[in-house]
Amino acid sequence: MARERNNFISHEFSMANGASPFSYRTNSAYQRRVVRATKQLMHEVVMEKLQMEKGMIFQITDMGCSIGPNTLISVKNIVESVESKFQIMTKNTNNNDNETVPKKIIQVFFNDHAFNDFNTLFMSLPLKRSYYAAAAVGSFYDRVFPDRSVHIVNCSYGLHFLSRVPSEVEDEKSLAWNKGNVYYSHAKEKVIRQYMKQHEEDMNSFLNARAQEVVPGGLVFITVPARPDGTPHSQVIYNMLAHILGSCFLDLANQGDIEEEEVDSFNIPVYITSPSEVKEAIIRNGSFSIEKLEILPKETSPTNGLTAKDASVHIRAITEGLIEEKIGPKILDKLFQLYVQKLEDAYLDLLSGEAISLFVALKRKTNL
Amino acid sequence: MARERNNFISHEFSMANGASPFSYRTNSAYQRRVVRATKQLMHEVVMEKLQMEKGMIFQITDMGCSIGPNTLISVKNIVESVESKFQIMTKNTNNNDNETVPKKIIQVFFNDHAFNDFNTLFMSLPLKRSYYAAAAVGSFYDRVFPDRSVHIVNCSYGLHFLSRVPSEVEDEKSLAWNKGNVYYSHAKEKVIRQYMKQHEEDMNSFLNARAQEVVPGGLVFITVPARPDGTPHSQVIYNMLAHILGSCFLDLANQGDIEEEEVDSFNIPVYITSPSEVKEAIIRNGSFSIEKLEILPKETSPTNGLTAKDASVHIRAITEGLIEEKIGPKILDKLFQLYVQKLEDAYLDLLSGEAISLFVALKRKTNL
Repeated sequence: MARERNNFISHEFSMANGASPFSYRTNSAYQRRVVRATKQLMHEVVMEKLQMEKGMIFQITDMGCSIGPNTLISVKNIVESVESKFQIMTKNTNNNDNETVPKKIIQVFFNDHAFNDFNTLFMSLPLKRSYYAAAAVGSFYDRVFPDRSVHIVNCSYGLHFLSRVPSEVEDEKSLAWNKGNVYYSHAKEKVIRQYMKQHEEDMNSFLNARAQEVVPGGLVFITVPARPDGTPHSQVIYNMLAHILGSCFLDLANQGDIEEEEVDSFNIPVYITSPSEVKEAIIRNGSFSIEKLEILPKETSPTNGLTAKDASVHIRAITEGLIEEKIGPKILDKLFQLYVQKLEDAYLDLLSGEAISLFVALKRKTNL
Repeated sequence: MARERNNFISHEFSMANGASPFSYRTNSAYQRRVVRATKQLMHEVVMEKLQMEKGMIFQITDMGCSIGPNTLISVKNIVESVESKFQIMTKNTNNNDNETVPKKIIQVFFNDHAFNDFNTLFMSLPLKRSYYAAAAVGSFYDRVFPDRSVHIVNCSYGLHFLSRVPSEVEDEKSLAWNKGNVYYSHAKEKVIRQYMKQHEEDMNSFLNARAQEVVPGGLVFITVPARPDGTPHSQVIYNMLAHILGSCFLDLANQGDIEEEEVDSFNIPVYITSPSEVKEAIIRNGSFSIEKLEILPKETSPTNGLTAKDASVHIRAITEGLIEEKIGPKILDKLFQLYVQKLEDAYLDLLSGEAISLFVALKRKTNL
């Protein structure tokens, strides 16, 4: 079973694999728009900030890569930027250099959990590629690489997946128990705080691990879905989509298709952060300087041109494995039939919601 | 589809995957004996010959790893030796060093083709492991890693698979056309020479690629099934097993189950080398010094304790994908039923055959 880096599914849960009609592979159009939008931004940072030496081996990783095709496009964009930079650099340092075909100096690590469908990914690697391809196994909230071994990290649409559901929201003795909800955005403040706290911890784990793995001067690119600063969680489109799914769960419970306790025990481990929260996390961590922090253009919004049916297929791809694991497969079809209906009814409301994507380029400080 | 590093199947062909009852995973007992036998030899070479520095990152690859479990055992053995060496080294250089738990300094690359079943392998990685796990994709007859990036290469039971069937043996206009045979060992001299030539080329490709990838002073361990010098190809157990499979093909052709042309067009891309041929290939290549060259103890023989049924399941695991691709799946069951019978009849003959395994430890020359 593959597990995807996308909304509403934690690193700890699996989902439909590469061959499923509900798989992320066929439903990642809007993420491709995000990849396109970040291309130029990454190129600028590589050209201006990257430190390279002749003769070095260059290691790049795409963390939370899933099965493609977006990881292959991201990687291609970064590799091309590094090659441009390298060509300019070698021209500057050696005018007699008449190597027209540069040697392969780049090794790319596609990173994801062991249960990601790496075979689907490997089979779709371009035959003509100017990098050595490898996969590195493990959660990006832990160490994945040796000390000071990586030059560029990319993590696109990965960091909104929490490493786990905060235990308090599933504990009926806790004041943060999330009764009657499957998500935090429309829940009581105490639930929101637990989700926020978990995201803070996870961001710090990610940054600490990368601080050790990335060479001094190395770059980290992060793209995350986000809410504009000051916007309530309940006004974010992602969150509205998740909340509508939650209301479908409650309907099924009312009809007796599932138990109310099953709804209470199910929580989607996703948190939608904001530009200022991301900035604070990076400053608090202290190992990286912020080289770029940009809100991506509107056309990267997931609702851009998306129908209710599309959205439902998309959200199903993301939550299916989690629901199967917690509640079982039997309610899936009924749940998502209801979901399409409700999405159609709510479509105008959804368009009033906010949806931004945030791009951050970090540089590993050298004076630590 | 996974493809295995084992007898009688080329890198270019696929075979039963990890879940198949005929998979290599469940039929690799004798290879485990080989892994055990090489453990001490590799340990000695690591302790005596490996050059390490404090603070370095150590990269190890198991090339042609297949899906386990043997690759995991080989890797564990090598990692333990490197750690022992590292502990002795740090003790010698720093008596005040009180790090009891050494940092993870080792990154292991499991290498195989893109269509190897890496998911099965990743799922069986030990949770507690003292190395960072990665997979590197590509044929070991080509470049897989950047220049001077690897410290230890292991290739166990991989190099007897040719990169391809020599084209002449499948060309009916050639004097080396292998009519009526599916293998070289009992064929005419011209066929044997073509197989031998292909193996020479492949060995040189392997050594050239590793010469660029391995750091000066780095180590390459090779284990291959072999024939004793002076023994004819037809007297080697592997070859006898393949030849008996060939006679089953001919029987099916005589019964009209397959066409004679199908037998003519099918050749198993495996060549069993000898100690002196391996030695010559390494000397001719020139990039490596030979640190150890040993014939493994008799108990590593594939016929040790193996029944005809076992041998048939084993050979089926190895040839199935190839036969499916060339001739189709329909004859498989009939072919291997006949094969068990013939193996039982030939069992005493088989015991008179030769079967050795050869272990070679190479060191990348530093003065090139």
